[in-house]
Order: sequence, then C-alpha cells, then structure tokens
Amino acid sequence: MKVDLNCDLGESFGNYKIGNDENIIPVITSANIACGFHAGDAQVMKNTVKLAQENNIGIGAHPGLPDLQGFGRRNMDLSPQEIYDIVVYQLGAINGFCAIHNAKLNHVKPHGALYQMGARDEEIAHAIAQAVHDFDPSLIFVGLSNTLLISKAQEIGLQTASEVFADRRYEANGQLVSRKESDALITDTEEAISQVVSMVKNQQVTAKNGEKISIQADTICVHGDGAHAFEFVSQIRERLSKEGISISTLGG
Amino acid sequence: MKVDLNCDLGESFGNYKIGNDENIIPVITSANIACGFHAGDAQVMKNTVKLAQENNIGIGAHPGLPDLQGFGRRNMDLSPQEIYDIVVYQLGAINGFCAIHNAKLNHVKPHGALYQMGARDEEIAHAIAQAVHDFDPSLIFVGLSNTLLISKAQEIGLQTASEVFADRRYEANGQLVSRKESDALITDTEEAISQVVSMVKNQQVTAKNGEKISIQADTICVHGDGAHAFEFVSQIRERLSKEGISISTLGG
Amino acid sequence: MKVDLNCDLGESFGNYKIGNDENIIPVITSANIACGFHAGDAQVMKNTVKLAQENNIGIGAHPGLPDLQGFGRRNMDLSPQEIYDIVVYQLGAINGFCAIHNAKLNHVKPHGALYQMGARDEEIAHAIAQAVHDFDPSLIFVGLSNTLLISKAQEIGLQTASEVFADRRYEANGQLVSRKESDALITDTEEAISQVVSMVKNQQVTAKNGEKISIQADTICVHGDGAHAFEFVSQIRERLSKEGISISTLGG
Amino acid sequence: MKVDLNCDLGESFGNYKIGNDENIIPVITSANIACGFHAGDAQVMKNTVKLAQENNIGIGAHPGLPDLQGFGRRNMDLSPQEIYDIVVYQLGAINGFCAIHNAKLNHVKPHGALYQMGARDEEIAHAIAQAVHDFDPSLIFVGLSNTLLISKAQEIGLQTASEVFADRRYEANGQLVSRKESDALITDTEEAISQVVSMVKNQQVTAKNGEKISIQADTICVHGDGAHAFEFVSQIRERLSKEGISISTLGG
Repeated sequence: MKVDLNCDLGESFGNYKIGNDENIIPVITSANIACGFHAGDAQVMKNTVKLAQENNIGIGAHPGLPDLQGFGRRNMDLSPQEIYDIVVYQLGAINGFCAIHNAKLNHVKPHGALYQMGARDEEIAHAIAQAVHDFDPSLIFVGLSNTLLISKAQEIGLQTASEVFADRRYEANGQLVSRKESDALITDTEEAISQVVSMVKNQQVTAKNGEKISIQADTICVHGDGAHAFEFVSQIRERLSKEGISISTLGG
Repeated sequence: MKVDLNCDLGESFGNYKIGNDENIIPVITSANIACGFHAGDAQVMKNTVKLAQENNIGIGAHPGLPDLQGFGRRNMDLSPQEIYDIVVYQLGAINGFCAIHNAKLNHVKPHGALYQMGARDEEIAHAIAQAVHDFDPSLIFVGLSNTLLISKAQEIGLQTASEVFADRRYEANGQLVSRKESDALITDTEEAISQVVSMVKNQQVTAKNGEKISIQADTICVHGDGAHAFEFVSQIRERLSKEGISISTLGG
Repeated sequence: MKVDLNCDLGESFGNYKIGNDENIIPVITSANIACGFHAGDAQVMKNTVKLAQENNIGIGAHPGLPDLQGFGRRNMDLSPQEIYDIVVYQLGAINGFCAIHNAKLNHVKPHGALYQMGARDEEIAHAIAQAVHDFDPSLIFVGLSNTLLISKAQEIGLQTASEVFADRRYEANGQLVSRKESDALITDTEEAISQVVSMVKNQQVTAKNGEKISIQADTICVHGDGAHAFEFVSQIRERLSKEGISISTLGG
Repeated sequence: MKVDLNCDLGESFGNYKIGNDENIIPVITSANIACGFHAGDAQVMKNTVKLAQENNIGIGAHPGLPDLQGFGRRNMDLSPQEIYDIVVYQLGAINGFCAIHNAKLNHVKPHGALYQMGARDEEIAHAIAQAVHDFDPSLIFVGLSNTLLISKAQEIGLQTASEVFADRRYEANGQLVSRKESDALITDTEEAISQVVSMVKNQQVTAKNGEKISIQADTICVHGDGAHAFEFVSQIRERLSKEGISISTLGG
C-alpha cells in the first residue's frame, strides 16, 4: 500500500514571493509547478524544477488560467479549444526547464479554477486530458478523486492519480464541501490525519453528513505555506508509516 | 549553392490579426513563429506550427522580449540570466505545439530588440545561444550575419545560419544601416534582388559607402505582410533559380 | 424626438490595429473608448479622446474585463467588489486623457462580457453603476435597453441611456437573440433601418416571434469596422432625418 | 524648518503581498502609491488611498514602467511620448480612487527605472513632468535632489520637492552611489540619522569622497518593509524634532 504527497510549488512571481518551497520539499514526493499563467515566472520555474530534481521528487506541471491577478482562482469562460491550447503551451514551457536540467516531467495537475471547472464539466475535462495526452501520453494525470477529471483522462488512455485532501471535508456525493461553507476545512490535526489514513487504507471517507463513501486516494494534496506546514506533513508521514503505508512518488 | 528564405509568422494575438501567413507561406522555406511574449498566443502558435508543417517548411521559434505592447521592439534591460530564462520558456512553449503535431522544431531566431541586443552584446548573445543549446543542441541558430549572435552560438557548439536582408542597406562594418537613416531601406525591387544574388553567390554586399564587404548568406529574411510581399518573394525565387541557386530549408 | 449614435473606438493595441476610427467618426455622435483592459493602450486612448474632441462627439469610457487576449468577451467570475474596482480604475485612466485635452467625459458603457454580465446579474449591474456614480455622478450610463443595467443605474441615481442595436434581432422578453442563433443578425440594410426607425419613433420593436414589444431607444450602437460601416450609418442618419428625428450626443 | 517623510505603499498585487503598509503609515507623512504597472492593482490602490486618507498623510501617485515581473526596475527603451502617455494613464487611474474617496492627489513621484531614467535623461524628465503638468498643474513633483527631474519640472512650472535618502551614500556630483558599489548603503542607524539631519538642517551632505556638497532636502525617502522600518523611522522623527525640524506633508 502506498501513496504520494503532492504540493503546489513555484508560485512566486518576480519580486513577489509566495510559499516556502525549500522548507516543505523534503517531506513531499511530488511538486506541482506553476507555469507562468496564474503564478510563477521563467526564473522561478527554472529554479523550482532544479529544486525538485535535487530532492528526487516527482516533477509536475501545474497549468492554470491566464489570470495572474486572480491567481487562477476565478472561473473564466474559455472554450474547450482555448483550454486545450493554454494547457499545451504551459506543458511545453515547463518541459523546457526539464530539458535544460535533464529532468523528466512526471505528472500534470490542473490548478485552481481550471481544476474545478474540469472536475464538473465534461468538455473541459476532456480538453485538458486531451492536451496532456497529445503532448506526452506517458504523463500521469492528477485530478480530484471521483470526478470527471479522472474518468475523462482514463477514457483518453492516460494513467491517472486520484487526489484527496487531508484538510477538507467531503460531501456525500464525493465532492469537496465548498470553501464558502463554515465546515469546509478540517482544522484539527488529528482528525485530518485520521481522514487521510482512512482514505488511503480503507478507500473510504466519512462525508459531512456522517455517511461513509468510497474514495480513491493515490495522492494527498498538502500545503507548503502555512506556519505549521512542515510539522503537519511530517506527522502525516509518520502516521502513514506506522500504518504500513509507504510514501512514494506517483508512478514510482 | 543554396539558400533559405525565412519569414516571421504567427504574430496575431487574440482578436488582433497581423500578417498574411497563408499567402506568403508557399514561397518561403522557414517560418519564425512568435512564442507569446512579443506576439502570438497559444491558439495562433498551434495553428501556425500546423500551417508550416502542412507546407513542409522549417519550423522555427521566434522568442522575444516580454513586451506585447511594444511588439518586442523596445530594448529592456534584462540580465543575461533573465534572457536565458525567457528563451528557454518560449522554446518550450513552441515545442509543445510541435509535440502535439508530431512536428520537429528546426531553428531559433531571436526577435526584434532581443535580436539587436544579442547582435551587439556579448553576454546577451551568449545567454541566448546557451539557452538554445541547453534546450536542444541540434537546433539551428539564426542570427544577423557578421555579428556576435553568430560567433557566440558557434563557440557554444550550435550550428548557425547567417541571416541577410533583401531590402536593407549595409554599413561598411557589416551592420545594417539603422532604420533611423533615410537610406536604410532598398525600395527598388531590382536593386534588392541583385543584392540578394550577390550576397548568396559571391558572399559580398556593397555597403552604403560603396565598399564591397564580405557577408555570409545562409538565409534571407523576407516579410509577409506587405501588399506585394508574395510577388516580391516570388521574383527573388525566380532570379535565384536562374542563377543556379537552390532554395531549401535550413539544415535540409 | 432625438437619438444618439454610438460606436466602440480606440480598440487598437500597440502594433495591432483594429477598426477604422477616422472613417466612422464623422457620422456618429458618441464614442465608447476602450480603457486598456480588453483593448486600447495609453497612446491609443490619448489619440482617440483627441479625435472625438475634434469631431465634437461625446466622449465615453468603455471599461472591460482584464482579458486582452479574449477582447473582454469571455465571462470572468469576478466578485462585485472586484468589478467595482476595475471600473473605477478604467474610468480614472480615460479621464486622465480627458484632463490633458481639457475634454469632458460624458458617458460610460460597459464592454462585452462585462456588459452582458451586468445586463443579467443584479449585483454586477449594481457594482458597475455604483463605481460610475462614486467616480462622477454626472456621467450618463449606457446599458442594454430593458435590462438590469438600466434599472440598477437609475436606482442609484444615474442618468441613463437605453441602448438598442440596428442589426440585432430581439427576443419577446426584450433580450437580444443570442449570437449563437442563426437569425441573431439582421443582414438586410433596409430591414435594419426600419427596425431603428420603429424603435426610436414608436418605442417598439418586432421580436423574433412576431410579437411587438416596447423598447426604449436613446442611443443606437453601430459598428465602425465593416467594409460598409460608413455607408450603413450614413443611410441610418438620412432616414432618421427624414422621419424628423434629430441625431445628437447623449445629454446634449 | 520642516521636512516630509515619504514611503512607497500599495505594492501588493492580487494574491501577492509586499510591504507592511499599516505598520509604517503612522510615522510617515506622504504615501507614494503604485498605480498598477510595476505593482499594485485596482483593489490595492483603492484600499491604500483610503488608508492614507484615514491617516491624514499626503496621497501621491507612484507611476512606473509597464513591467510587473521586473517590478519596474528594469530600464525599458520607451520614447518620451510613450512615457508621457503611461504617466497620464497611471495618474488618471490613481485619481479615480481619490475621486471615489473624496480625497485629493497631492504629489507624484516616478518609480524605479522611470525615476532613474528621468534623473539622467533630459527628454524623459521633461516627458514625465509635462504629463504631470498637463494632468494637474497643482501637483507637487517629487524627484531626486540635484537632478534633471527637479530642474525640468521647475522649468515647466511645477512645484517640486527634492528627495533625499537616509540610508544611501552620495557621490561628489550629488548622485547616489550605485547599488552595485559595496558602500552604497549606510547600515549604521546613527550615521543615517546624522546624514538626514545634516541634509535637512544644513542642506549639506558628506559625499563618499569626504567632500561636503550642497543638497536640497524637502522629503526623505524611507522604506516600510524591513523588520526595523517602524523603529528606524521613529528614531528619525524623534531626532528631527529635537533639532527643531517639523515633519509635515509636502505642500502642507
């Protein structure tokens, strides 16, 4: 039994710093690296690919909507064709930095509004997955567990990794409780860790309404920028180890 | 004896159209495709790579400065390291569209101010060439004949193609007469064609001051957007053929 | 009886030209000038304000979404507060060019997706109108006739101008037939002109289903960039004159 | 005898935070607010104008080059006309937020590379000052003491404020020692404070080579984002008070 721990990295831009990449990278196994549309710039991408390579973790593309001001979190009404195009562009760009470092791009995880739009809209999920497949069919596609992102990518023939969240509550239908709800986040560390263990070990999570639902957990999304991020992820790792679950990079 | 005919393509952006790519493409042998920084967007890049591929001409990257409003023609004081980074980013991005079309990127020609800065500044020339080499050492590097762009790229180990202009006058030192001078442009078609033939056949051009200087002419830059562009390039082709010079894609 | 003829101007950007502003401006009475978000740049704005001033037509702000690539036509999920902020920013910017020319900003018309979003969403209509009012309560607010844009602006206390389209068909509920429908556009010049006359003179338009509906027509939107734009608008003017309807700038 | 204390504020952008505006604002008398080109966005501008107004300090525009990634610190080869245009645009935009808050724009200080370019280039200094004057001749123009920024603005008829730096060393010709030199910065607090007092009280500063040179000190630039920023500025204030120098907003 094994699971991957992924984290969004490389979100700084020019003079603007976000995150604490050096701090979190030793305890994760996959990096989702921003590609310059919602965050990141050429220099940040170069350095982040290098950092991930040096730490032997999986290098992933984290393409987003062309909205730096909104950090790619505001839905934009792009056609599936436009989405296909911007995903190819961003995959190419990040792959340029893999090329100069002789590194291999391992996975793709859409960011923010693109991720949410793809989870809910068939045509968008298809456009993203098709772009990934056309660019490189050996890439692992990371999407929200139980959603169209996963099913559409599988239809196209991509290897997928279903993503779960340690610190988010789930609805009975398998979706995340919206951040607009007061109980969207799990703030108790022990509760979060127990949820993770249950998802990985039993492929089950207890939804907000108490119902137990099935969930696939190939990779766990963690955050790198909070004050206790390193400590929290370390605790998750320790607990997973105790449960006999190995932590390893996607596809590894 | 042979020469390539290159033209800047894919310079439209969103709702904004520039150029007449379909018109000029049948008479050229290499396309320099904008990469989204000074011009071009993801959709335009996708379509332009396809168009070049269908017409069996060389596909080239045309990276520029991050200045859409200035069309990459305004010098910007970027460090060599920043230039390296943005060249890698743009090479990766255009290569993404080559990947989805199973096309091969053949050459790189810097655009506008980046081209001019590289022609005159050793560190910048080196940064551009190093980025190209690190990305893919098999790419052909196109730069202004007789300048640092060519010598630095050769030092690094890249195959180079020296570029000449049909419709521009030359200084005795081999540089182009500045566009700020009234006699920068050759407006007489016959004179332009004769200059091209002399450069390709005799590796010589008559400078503005009457002096004959040596020049290497591997590829001729032509423009696609004037009213008579197609006719002008057709006449060049015809005349080169009569002189026994074959017209073929760089590296072909 | 009188009506205004408005047209979107100043949509060029850097090296990219759109429209034929000098051509259409003699036959219109109000200019909606792009403010640099969906189109236009500082130089274009300066020149377009000057052009409108010299032609004695009404100078209007045409604020849009921050999406140059999509020309402000793609919906973006901005909060009402974010919309308020970007409208104020753009009003200020265009007003800067009025200040240097000693010209007076006369009206505001939201552009593209912002216009459509405001026509359908109460909070967005309110945010746009509030921004206009807070910036300068004497500005005339132009919005689609019969929609929330008009009613919300009136609630806030702005003077409004209801806009109609010469070449678009209407639904029985007063909305425009979507451009996705095959019969959205009126292509017959005579039919378009008759529709205009009916709307201005009788405050009535025949909807797609044959029903006659009421419509307020304070200003007619015309386009400046088609091959026959000047001729078409000239014909509208001639016909309106014959009907005894004067053509004059909003608020004039 | 009096002096102003100015600080760059409102440099955050979207999800990216820079500075500690709330912390420094109680001890300064003028705010230079970024206008969305090199830093800042519409929301940040709105909030920063409000914050300055509530703290009764002078509200200033801080226009910069259109280079968010470079934070406006990289020279760009814009023509004087282009510089004029982007300054007007940014003055208008920030003034929009003054309008909605019923606040008055008090001064203008160019940012970063624009400031440096203007200090050294006559045409650029003139273009910036002309834009400010055409926009609103009552604005106070802040520029580096002893440079073309000040002399050109005065020629045009603007009221000027000569700026000095507490923590920078000066060359014998009155220019700042370049940041590329190891002794550019004064790191000793007491030395910095003494320099300030000397500049304000005696209109003299000791240059790097030991020579005493004259300098006009109407406003002192301080920084808001360092760990000890608040403490350092408080010490300057205390010392200036002891010397009988009042601290008050430009033009106040």
